[in-house]
Amino acid sequence: MPTSPNYKTIGIFSRPRRPAVAEVVPGVLEWLKARGVGTLYDVETAANLQSRATPMTRQHIAEQSDLLLVLGGDGTILAASREAAPSGVPILPINLGGLGFLTSFTLEELYPALEDALAGRAAISERVMLLVERMHNGVALTEQRVLNDAVVHKGTLARMIELELHIDAGFVCRYRADGLIVATPTGSTAYSMSAGGPIVHPAVESIQITPICPHTLSDRPVVVHDNSRIELRLAEGSDPVFLTMDGQIGAPMQAGDRVQITRAPEPLKLIHPPNKLYFEILRNKLKWGEA
Amino acid sequence: MPTSPNYKTIGIFSRPRRPAVAEVVPGVLEWLKARGVGTLYDVETAANLQSRATPMTRQHIAEQSDLLLVLGGDGTILAASREAAPSGVPILPINLGGLGFLTSFTLEELYPALEDALAGRAAISERVMLLVERMHNGVALTEQRVLNDAVVHKGTLARMIELELHIDAGFVCRYRADGLIVATPTGSTAYSMSAGGPIVHPAVESIQITPICPHTLSDRPVVVHDNSRIELRLAEGSDPVFLTMDGQIGAPMQAGDRVQITRAPEPLKLIHPPNKLYFEILRNKLKWGEA
Amino acid sequence: MPTSPNYKTIGIFSRPRRPAVAEVVPGVLEWLKARGVGTLYDVETAANLQSRATPMTRQHIAEQSDLLLVLGGDGTILAASREAAPSGVPILPINLGGLGFLTSFTLEELYPALEDALAGRAAISERVMLLVERMHNGVALTEQRVLNDAVVHKGTLARMIELELHIDAGFVCRYRADGLIVATPTGSTAYSMSAGGPIVHPAVESIQITPICPHTLSDRPVVVHDNSRIELRLAEGSDPVFLTMDGQIGAPMQAGDRVQITRAPEPLKLIHPPNKLYFEILRNKLKWGEA
Amino acid sequence: MPTSPNYKTIGIFSRPRRPAVAEVVPGVLEWLKARGVGTLYDVETAANLQSRATPMTRQHIAEQSDLLLVLGGDGTILAASREAAPSGVPILPINLGGLGFLTSFTLEELYPALEDALAGRAAISERVMLLVERMHNGVALTEQRVLNDAVVHKGTLARMIELELHIDAGFVCRYRADGLIVATPTGSTAYSMSAGGPIVHPAVESIQITPICPHTLSDRPVVVHDNSRIELRLAEGSDPVFLTMDGQIGAPMQAGDRVQITRAPEPLKLIHPPNKLYFEILRNKLKWGEA
Repeated sequence: MPTSPNYKTIGIFSRPRRPAVAEVVPGVLEWLKARGVGTLYDVETAANLQSRATPMTRQHIAEQSDLLLVLGGDGTILAASREAAPSGVPILPINLGGLGFLTSFTLEELYPALEDALAGRAAISERVMLLVERMHNGVALTEQRVLNDAVVHKGTLARMIELELHIDAGFVCRYRADGLIVATPTGSTAYSMSAGGPIVHPAVESIQITPICPHTLSDRPVVVHDNSRIELRLAEGSDPVFLTMDGQIGAPMQAGDRVQITRAPEPLKLIHPPNKLYFEILRNKLKWGEA
Repeated sequence: MPTSPNYKTIGIFSRPRRPAVAEVVPGVLEWLKARGVGTLYDVETAANLQSRATPMTRQHIAEQSDLLLVLGGDGTILAASREAAPSGVPILPINLGGLGFLTSFTLEELYPALEDALAGRAAISERVMLLVERMHNGVALTEQRVLNDAVVHKGTLARMIELELHIDAGFVCRYRADGLIVATPTGSTAYSMSAGGPIVHPAVESIQITPICPHTLSDRPVVVHDNSRIELRLAEGSDPVFLTMDGQIGAPMQAGDRVQITRAPEPLKLIHPPNKLYFEILRNKLKWGEA
Repeated sequence: MPTSPNYKTIGIFSRPRRPAVAEVVPGVLEWLKARGVGTLYDVETAANLQSRATPMTRQHIAEQSDLLLVLGGDGTILAASREAAPSGVPILPINLGGLGFLTSFTLEELYPALEDALAGRAAISERVMLLVERMHNGVALTEQRVLNDAVVHKGTLARMIELELHIDAGFVCRYRADGLIVATPTGSTAYSMSAGGPIVHPAVESIQITPICPHTLSDRPVVVHDNSRIELRLAEGSDPVFLTMDGQIGAPMQAGDRVQITRAPEPLKLIHPPNKLYFEILRNKLKWGEA
Repeated sequence: MPTSPNYKTIGIFSRPRRPAVAEVVPGVLEWLKARGVGTLYDVETAANLQSRATPMTRQHIAEQSDLLLVLGGDGTILAASREAAPSGVPILPINLGGLGFLTSFTLEELYPALEDALAGRAAISERVMLLVERMHNGVALTEQRVLNDAVVHKGTLARMIELELHIDAGFVCRYRADGLIVATPTGSTAYSMSAGGPIVHPAVESIQITPICPHTLSDRPVVVHDNSRIELRLAEGSDPVFLTMDGQIGAPMQAGDRVQITRAPEPLKLIHPPNKLYFEILRNKLKWGEA
């Protein structure tokens, strides 16, 4: 089988402390070498293999690779997406635990999936990501990409957040709630769904804004176009709150701080099994049709 | 002020039995005549004026007009939209009762709005409509356009509906519920919201599918792209159910019947006040920020 | 084994058209005869047996029996409860289909359960029922008992109901909704739950009032004490609506009609497996703990 | 007007930093002195008056008083209830801000309410409180009373809590959620309502258990009898979580810790305006009937 010209180097990212990684990766490395494909792997994979890794950052690996093989669960994909999307490198996700919304290949499907990818037969879907920018005293702090959501949440001792939502510079409403979730369609089946948000198909170019435990009972999930510029303004005199991105990266927010959220310029390229449809995965995860 | 060349004839639709119509329309007719604009009005307006109408159908009026002046509430706009959209004629909605989601001009704003329209200064937004087609024994029955929603609902004595949802010929799930609402973004703030559906901004190219009193507790509102082909299949052996379009047109459905729903080829063109934004109207209607 | 003195006659009620009934009942009749217990059975059981029944009403059987053996599903129990409760005769429910909330004995448990009942070892729980009285032009029409719920629901073509809720002669609120459910704790896991109502343990002396698709988004399920006198008043000028009791008995309501609901003087006595707890049944039905 | 023999001493609790307190209290002290009623006030009232207080604890004041006059909002009542209930002393709540669910007398009603109380004409309702006991390594730590709720909530960085619910020593279910609220009927209109819980009339002897953002979509609010013994068990290996009581008192919880919740032996005695009914207050707070 001829190697596809596009995939000269494949990067491997792994979930930490997963015995399955040590069992699987050596065979994969050999299999790829036999096909003339170079490999790079991250510190987590190295630790799983109990080998010494070249100390190469995930960002560097993503930039050098033509494909990222990601071994883990949805959380591992979320972290990998932040490195993969800016480089435009597609992710091939292999699920090491229970079926995830994002990790739709099982371990048994690993080699057939790799073969399809090398042969250029992979089904790749694009998932919109968001850019989250925090403003403190009018100064823009670090920008972060998210695949699922950005969440502003009250601290443990605070009673609630008071947040103004502005869209495209127009005032929308004031939330008094435990928190507010701003999610992509991909994130609509994650935290947003627990808070009462709708299930949004990835093809809908949209952003979901869902309050957590709103004090105003008429507050409902709102869906806006993903070309909107969303701004969350923490009220003056507010208690400190927390901004969490994809449930993995946190930052404190002070009274008067703002968060600006827009669609990221590059989507995540995600390989999925050609015969597993979006609603089939959803049906399995939600156990629809069993009751 | 020069009359805009585009508006040579203005059609007038009215809500039945509204005294305000008789007070307002004669002045409007005179005002338009003075500006060289012809007028056509429907049977309902004629009845309000206690005059004899030319027996012209709304469809015919819509085809002959460059603009439709619609006097009434959201229900009057829903009915008018079915005639206006296929002809591409824009609707100028004047609200005769409490503020509506669609009828955002008050009676006081009537003449300024007309003047802006004639001068080509009107702000026109496009609202997606849906085409609803009922299949009985494999035969397509009449097709209907809706601006808000198509609803399949159990009859009074039935226990529930059993309905299969298919999207683009793929099976999605089976609903056991009181009913199912398929709504446009415009309809998201109507019946769909009462059933727990999200608020969807009109710019989001999407269709909302919201179950009414689902027996399966994990059934959630689903949002799909508006280029989807939605099919609802009533189970064999099902009790008869009812299909209601925009809450105004009803049709019975038998076991085995299907409903196909797609985006209508032409959107509704709706004139709105240039300075009243979507979220401002929403805030007023939902009394946000008052509690 | 000595026959308990309390159970000289056992009545049998069956779900119509269930082959299992014909397989099971002859053996039961023989088994009971051998223990000196007389039997009476209803027209539905007779039809299942293809035998000629003594034309005895269910009410008459309930009055003559010391125990009712009910073969069917939750719907069969609902119907039987209306006859059993006024006579104070306990129901032994045997489930012929999927596990129900009320029918917690399987067919395999039939003889052990009968033996326990005859020996006075049965675990009997009491379930509150409601009395539903309809008032038309100030005249009280027939009164009906319900084990689950009384539901006022809009007709197929109506837009909504407008209903005033009064409790103990005090005005509570006005509902604009598709309908309103007034449920017992037993009924809290039936229709009320689909409409968003809470799960209420049968020991809580309470009545649940849950709107269906309320137009006012702040309308929430309300739980009041079961010694409350609940009155629903259909607005003057309202469209006709329907009153449904336990999903089995329907009656039309006109503008101005009222429904009064109070706790019925006698509860239903329901035998349940001594080792199956309420929350265990609930967990199975709701598939808790599987996701 | 004769002083009622029951009220020889009245304690006064105030909300900190409220100018209204300094304006009102001196007149009240004089008014009571003229009627031969002694007064005691807490450190917060003293600070408001800029006077030197006898350094007497709230607990001591509650034990020495026949009535507690509480000036503030619902938060002030929550704090006062913990001192008042064990002593059986009733609370007369005067509202200094927006109308609260608990503080139903306005400042204008202060003297008529005091007069009614002294004359033995006050309407007193009893509100159930809960006892919350935390177990760490099998050792019972401090016990706390709550009028509204006990809440177990994930920390800021944790993903979710994993909690087992046991009732009367029987396993009920396992929650994977942001948190869990255990509330009295009084607390049903506070945090529990934001999380989707029902409104429960104070006369219903019950406890509400409501999950916050449950991952399992079928998790619903559960209502059990208030004679239940509720136990929450934090899973082994769980991240640390927080237990918050009435939103005012917090305590950390470690993996393996348990919380036991039962009805407190003494209810809170709360004076309310004789002509303001429960549902009237609710209607005002929720703005029912305005939409």
